[in-house]
Amino acid sequence: SSLLAENHSAAGVGVDQELISSVPSWNPTFVERNYTDAETAYCRSQPNPAASFAARWAGKEAVFKSLGVSSRGAGAAMREIEILPDESGVPQVKLHGNAKSSAASRNITKVHISLSHSDTVAIAFAQASV
Amino acid sequence: SSLLAENHSAAGVGVDQELISSVPSWNPTFVERNYTDAETAYCRSQPNPAASFAARWAGKEAVFKSLGVSSRGAGAAMREIEILPDESGVPQVKLHGNAKSSAASRNITKVHISLSHSDTVAIAFAQASV
Amino acid sequence: SSLLAENHSAAGVGVDQELISSVPSWNPTFVERNYTDAETAYCRSQPNPAASFAARWAGKEAVFKSLGVSSRGAGAAMREIEILPDESGVPQVKLHGNAKSSAASRNITKVHISLSHSDTVAIAFAQASV
Repeated sequence: SSLLAENHSAAGVGVDQELISSVPSWNPTFVERNYTDAETAYCRSQPNPAASFAARWAGKEAVFKSLGVSSRGAGAAMREIEILPDESGVPQVKLHGNAKSSAASRNITKVHISLSHSDTVAIAFAQASV
Repeated sequence: SSLLAENHSAAGVGVDQELISSVPSWNPTFVERNYTDAETAYCRSQPNPAASFAARWAGKEAVFKSLGVSSRGAGAAMREIEILPDESGVPQVKLHGNAKSSAASRNITKVHISLSHSDTVAIAFAQASV
Repeated sequence: SSLLAENHSAAGVGVDQELISSVPSWNPTFVERNYTDAETAYCRSQPNPAASFAARWAGKEAVFKSLGVSSRGAGAAMREIEILPDESGVPQVKLHGNAKSSAASRNITKVHISLSHSDTVAIAFAQASV
């Protein structure tokens, strides 16, 4: 019973905010390095692509934090955190590579994410569950 | 046991931010359409009613996101998400109408909410649990 | 089984934001009253101490909210909420005094925290689990 309690506790949370103007989504090299092809296609299809890229960047940072991984910013493999909407428009997190194995080693089975942006600021919240 | 694990996982999270100046709480039609009578009375009793209305608006959006419902903004039945403080001042979410049945159909039994505002911006975080 | 469900539900969430310029970390009396010695040493060792102090202040407020405690601002014993990074750099919450006994009385066994700051604003999210 105490084992069950531990199993079902939240594993970690993450919050991040980014100025939309500080995420250089006009730079193809930056985009290619940090976003999957599906993410790039999705962001470019949105009414405000810069805001979508920035919200996703904040989301990736928030997911890293929720995993308890200390890698942040330019050094992190942001492409390994893929955030795409499901058929209802709810953003879903899919992990690849080191991010995936790091989550698996901590028994994390699900990361919930939510994104929001104003005209100038994007914020994201992530919750990792075991 | 794996069934239990699923049952107790978080069901969804939601984050939202709003410029206080962008929530037209000076407009009685807007207020009547989007807030319950109890919410309106509460917000008007606060030191900064515009901030309270805006924080509650962000809260309603965050709750919708946490439920996995894709309805946002003017189209959503914001009155169906009622956010009122309990006797300790902790905001509590009460669902009505379609929001209530939508949550029930996903076995969501509780939505936690937290609100915060600065002089200009309101933010909210919601977490739905099964 | 329904008892287990309640036991593993999230107990509360908290979000807070602070203008970095509004947290007077240049004031030794303010710092001594609200931060533990270890927190003060940590914040002063960071590249942007004012941002670190402000993020921690937002974190303390968010933790209070997640505990369902209505004490906020100057009246609250902010020193009782200690937020320090673990060896991976992930911030961890340690409760002292009344905050600790209040959490214990609600069977809260863990509070997860995440902090973020831009040049001007610090935000924090906390989640209390039973």
